[in-house]
Amino acid sequence: MSIKPIEFENGVCRMIDQRLLPAQEVWLDYRDYRSVAEAIQTMVVRGAPAIGVAAAFGAAFAAAEIEAEDFAMFESQFEECCAVLAATRPTAVNLFWALDRMKSVAKANQKLSLPDLRQVLLDEALTIAEDDDQINRTMGAHGQVLFPDKANILTHCNAGALATGGYGTALGVIRAAVEAGKQIEVFADETRPFWQGARLTAWELMQDDIPVTVICDNMAGYLMQQGRVDAVIVGADRITANGDVANKIGTYTVAVLAKEHGIPFYVAAPMSTIDLSLTDGSQIPIEERDPREVTHCGDTQLAPDGVKVYNPAFDVTPSHLVTAIITERGVVQGDYLNGLKALAQ
Amino acid sequence: MSIKPIEFENGVCRMIDQRLLPAQEVWLDYRDYRSVAEAIQTMVVRGAPAIGVAAAFGAAFAAAEIEAEDFAMFESQFEECCAVLAATRPTAVNLFWALDRMKSVAKANQKLSLPDLRQVLLDEALTIAEDDDQINRTMGAHGQVLFPDKANILTHCNAGALATGGYGTALGVIRAAVEAGKQIEVFADETRPFWQGARLTAWELMQDDIPVTVICDNMAGYLMQQGRVDAVIVGADRITANGDVANKIGTYTVAVLAKEHGIPFYVAAPMSTIDLSLTDGSQIPIEERDPREVTHCGDTQLAPDGVKVYNPAFDVTPSHLVTAIITERGVVQGDYLNGLKALAQ
Repeated sequence: MSIKPIEFENGVCRMIDQRLLPAQEVWLDYRDYRSVAEAIQTMVVRGAPAIGVAAAFGAAFAAAEIEAEDFAMFESQFEECCAVLAATRPTAVNLFWALDRMKSVAKANQKLSLPDLRQVLLDEALTIAEDDDQINRTMGAHGQVLFPDKANILTHCNAGALATGGYGTALGVIRAAVEAGKQIEVFADETRPFWQGARLTAWELMQDDIPVTVICDNMAGYLMQQGRVDAVIVGADRITANGDVANKIGTYTVAVLAKEHGIPFYVAAPMSTIDLSLTDGSQIPIEERDPREVTHCGDTQLAPDGVKVYNPAFDVTPSHLVTAIITERGVVQGDYLNGLKALAQ
Repeated sequence: MSIKPIEFENGVCRMIDQRLLPAQEVWLDYRDYRSVAEAIQTMVVRGAPAIGVAAAFGAAFAAAEIEAEDFAMFESQFEECCAVLAATRPTAVNLFWALDRMKSVAKANQKLSLPDLRQVLLDEALTIAEDDDQINRTMGAHGQVLFPDKANILTHCNAGALATGGYGTALGVIRAAVEAGKQIEVFADETRPFWQGARLTAWELMQDDIPVTVICDNMAGYLMQQGRVDAVIVGADRITANGDVANKIGTYTVAVLAKEHGIPFYVAAPMSTIDLSLTDGSQIPIEERDPREVTHCGDTQLAPDGVKVYNPAFDVTPSHLVTAIITERGVVQGDYLNGLKALAQ
C-alpha cells in the first residue's frame, strides 16, 4: 500500500509536507486556491503528476471562492485564478494540462447553476486524482515486463507515489515488477539540491520493503562501470513530440552514463506529461531556483558568502538516449514522433 | 598569493581545518605523529599532495618522539610509526610515496647521531612541502598552454592550494592561465558528499578573484550540453602505469560526459601521484567512508534512519577518457604507458 500524498475529505485538501520527509510526517490542510499555489511553488508537493492533481484541487477551490452572476463573469475570474496556479512552476506540463482540463469542464458545464458547477469541478479534481493512481498501475503493468528478474535498477529523483496521485510512475513500474514476483534492488540517486532521492524515494521504498541503497548523484557512473546497474528508470516533467524528456536536473547525465555502459534507460510517464505542441526539448522552459538550495543545507552553510551559483531544476534528455517511454497506453520505442502521436489519438 | 594549508614553525605543524571552511578559518597545531595521522584520517587535511606533506611532517614528529640506542632500534620504531600514518587512507599514493621517501632518507643517514638524524628528517619534510609548491607552479606553466583564452573550465573536487603544499595541481594550471593573462571562468562541481568543490574550491578561487560558479555535481552534463564548458581539469589521487586515474568520486562521470560532448579532459598531478608499480586502475584500493557523510549534512538528516548507503570516496577514470596528463616534468598524451615511464626516468 503505497502512500497517497494528496487526500481530499470534507472540503479539505490534505498534503504531506514533502520538504520535511523523512524526518517528520506532517500533513497540511488546504482550503483555498492561493495556498495551494504556494504549496506547489514552495514544493510542499512536487512531482509532475502530483502537481497536476494539486492544481486541479486548487482550481476546484477557486471555483468555490468565486461569486459570479453569470458564466462569463465566473469564467473570467476562474481563468485569473488558474493563471495564479499556472505561474507557480514552469517546467512540468501536467500543471497546465490539469488546469486546461478544469477550464474545459467549466466551459462544458456553463449552463449549470454556480453550486452545481462548483460540484462538477470538484468531482473532476477527484477524478483526476483517482485516475492518476489507476494510470500508474496500468503503466506499471506495461513497464515491468522490461525488467529482468534479479535486477538492480537505478532511479533519479522521486517518481514515486509521493510524486503522483499514488503508486508512482518510475517507482510504479518497480512496484509492479516486485508484485510480479521479481527480485528488484533499487539504487536511489540522492538528487541534489532538493534530495528527492535520499529523502523521498528511500523513504517510500523502505515503507514498502523494497530494497534500496542511497548513493550520491556522482556515484552512478562508478556503479555502472562496476556492472552493478541493469537498467535505469526515471519519470518525466514534460515529453515533447519527438520524445525529448525534461526531468529533474541530473537525468541527462544519467542517460549519457547509461548509453556509455550499454544500459537501457527507461522513462515512465502518463499521457498527461506528453506535450505534442512542442517539437523538441529546446522549447521546454527550464526553471531556475534559489541559489540557497545549493549553498545551504538546513542551517549549514556549504559555499562561501556571495558565491555565484547556477541552479537549474531540470534538464532535457534527447530522445536518442531513451530506450523506451512507458505510458498507460503502452510502451513506445524508437520512432517516438509517430509512436507518441499514435498513442495520443 | 594562494593559501598554504600546512605550515611549520618552531616545532609546530599548523594545518587549516578544511572541514570547517568556508564558514570558519581555524588553524590547528600538531606536535606528534599520532595526531597528524588522525588529522589525515578525519580530513582536517585532504588532497593527495597535501596528505603527502602532512605525512612527512608526521614522520618527522615520529623521529623526534623515538628514543633508540642504535639505528636498528630506531628504524624498527620509525617503521611502526610510518605504518600508523600509512593506515589512515588507502587511495592517494602520495601518502605512501612521502613515507617511503622519509624511510629512505633515514636509512641513507643511519650513521648520524639521533639528534642529527631527527634534524635531517625534519629538513626532508620541509623540502617535500617546499618542493610541492614549486612543482605545482611548474605544472601550471606546462598545463596552462592547453587552455584557450576566454575559457570556461569545469573542475571537480578541490585540487587547489588547499589540496597541496600550495598553488594547486588542477587549480594551479588555472592560476597559471590567469597569470598568463587568459580570461578564465571556473565551474566548480560541489562534490558530494564532502563538498570540497562548494566549500574549498569556491573559497580559494574567490580569495584569488578568479570567477567561479558553484553547481551541483548532477548539473555538469546539462552545462556541457549547452556548450558552456570548454575544458575539464581535475587532480588525481593515484595514476597507474597505463594512465588510469583514481580521483574523487564523480570524476569518472565527468570524464564520460566530457567524451560525449567532445570536451578535453585534463588531469594535473605531480610525479609523486604516479604509481608505476600498478598496471592499471583495477589494482587501486578504493576507500569507502562512513554512510553518515551521505545521510546527514551537519545536524540535518537527509535519508531515512537505517537506509542502506554506498559511499566510495574515489573512482577510476580509464586512460582512454583522459586527453592529457600534466606533470611538473611535462605533458603526456596518448601513449601513457611509454610516456609516463619516460617522464619517471
